[in-house]
Amino acid sequence: MDELTERLRAFARERDWEQFHTPKNLAMALAGEVGELLAELQWLTPEQSATVMADPELGPRVRAEIGDVTVYLVRLADVLGLDLVDAALDKLDEAGRRYTVEAARGNATKITD
Amino acid sequence: MDELTERLRAFARERDWEQFHTPKNLAMALAGEVGELLAELQWLTPEQSATVMADPELGPRVRAEIGDVTVYLVRLADVLGLDLVDAALDKLDEAGRRYTVEAARGNATKITD
Amino acid sequence: MDELTERLRAFARERDWEQFHTPKNLAMALAGEVGELLAELQWLTPEQSATVMADPELGPRVRAEIGDVTVYLVRLADVLGLDLVDAALDKLDEAGRRYTVEAARGNATKITD
Amino acid sequence: MDELTERLRAFARERDWEQFHTPKNLAMALAGEVGELLAELQWLTPEQSATVMADPELGPRVRAEIGDVTVYLVRLADVLGLDLVDAALDKLDEAGRRYTVEAARGNATKITD
Repeated sequence: MDELTERLRAFARERDWEQFHTPKNLAMALAGEVGELLAELQWLTPEQSATVMADPELGPRVRAEIGDVTVYLVRLADVLGLDLVDAALDKLDEAGRRYTVEAARGNATKITD
Repeated sequence: MDELTERLRAFARERDWEQFHTPKNLAMALAGEVGELLAELQWLTPEQSATVMADPELGPRVRAEIGDVTVYLVRLADVLGLDLVDAALDKLDEAGRRYTVEAARGNATKITD
Repeated sequence: MDELTERLRAFARERDWEQFHTPKNLAMALAGEVGELLAELQWLTPEQSATVMADPELGPRVRAEIGDVTVYLVRLADVLGLDLVDAALDKLDEAGRRYTVEAARGNATKITD
Repeated sequence: MDELTERLRAFARERDWEQFHTPKNLAMALAGEVGELLAELQWLTPEQSATVMADPELGPRVRAEIGDVTVYLVRLADVLGLDLVDAALDKLDEAGRRYTVEAARGNATKITD
């Protein structure tokens, strides 16, 4: 993860792209990539989506979209000065207090909100 | 990151939520959280967005949304059996070949596509 | 539709919000609302989603999200000087040429791309 | 609008695509198209985005994405049995009560929430 952050930083600096990498712009780019990920899964049933990585055509495309989403999320967090994993662990702690095992068992709900 | 993956796995298992955590559903949840992140930044100028973390009200909200996005991305990658960082590094290698430093300097473009 | 466009225009003008209603900002707001719509449907099966309007709690929430999405799409098209329906009909003409009835029958694919 | 709804209905029926057009799937497709729209605007400044339709390359692409978004939103509303414009007008009435002209003047905020 640190290597990825560093390489993205160098990538933007070498191309003089730091001027474009504001949080607002990067959030839009992140959303654009998530849109491409959705497009790969939109007509599959949930069951088909569960085995998508075994498909020789779709599997690599889904992996590529996950890579794209990660690129922009890691770059965005770096520009914001945030540690992604810490931010996620804090939300998970909060979710654990809100959705206790007893109350949540088998009820579909959000991990976060 | 490994700790986060493990804790999300336990979180879902304990609540019997694995049935809902198909790639299709998790990709929708990821997109929903990215939508909440966009909502925090939508009326800011790019310049205002660059200092959003210094805002005592907006900063923590942006960090919480980044945490939510990370939660679902990490969970989705785990369900797909993918390594997020490897997938991102592969895309970055590919982008480096496509957008050479010389050609890309100062031209806004996508890291990925 | 014309009434909606007019009322949104007046709404923004009276509140001095025209300064915020750039295409970039409105596209982010549109994406944020679509994210809220996804969140209502994310844990439902496709079959459950087909009867969501009959649910006394979920139905009105889905309708409200559809209303929000429409508000921002109509406002965005107005700011861009576009006729929504014309733009859609043009894409549909193009899709009809690309996906002929014979070739497309029963194969899930995109209407548009 | 009625013509568009009717033509989309026929388009799906003739291709035997009604099986794929659940609200869940169509909401994902809508989000995917909104992601493509964001991608066209992500590196523009808000000011640049305000004149995007005058750009001979970008203008037609933005119009095409607006068309795609409209296609899926209209199809989704039809499948849900909703009138898009009525749903939007109801949200606008609600927003008018919440953000009075006096209170909202010049403060960036959401039309809807």
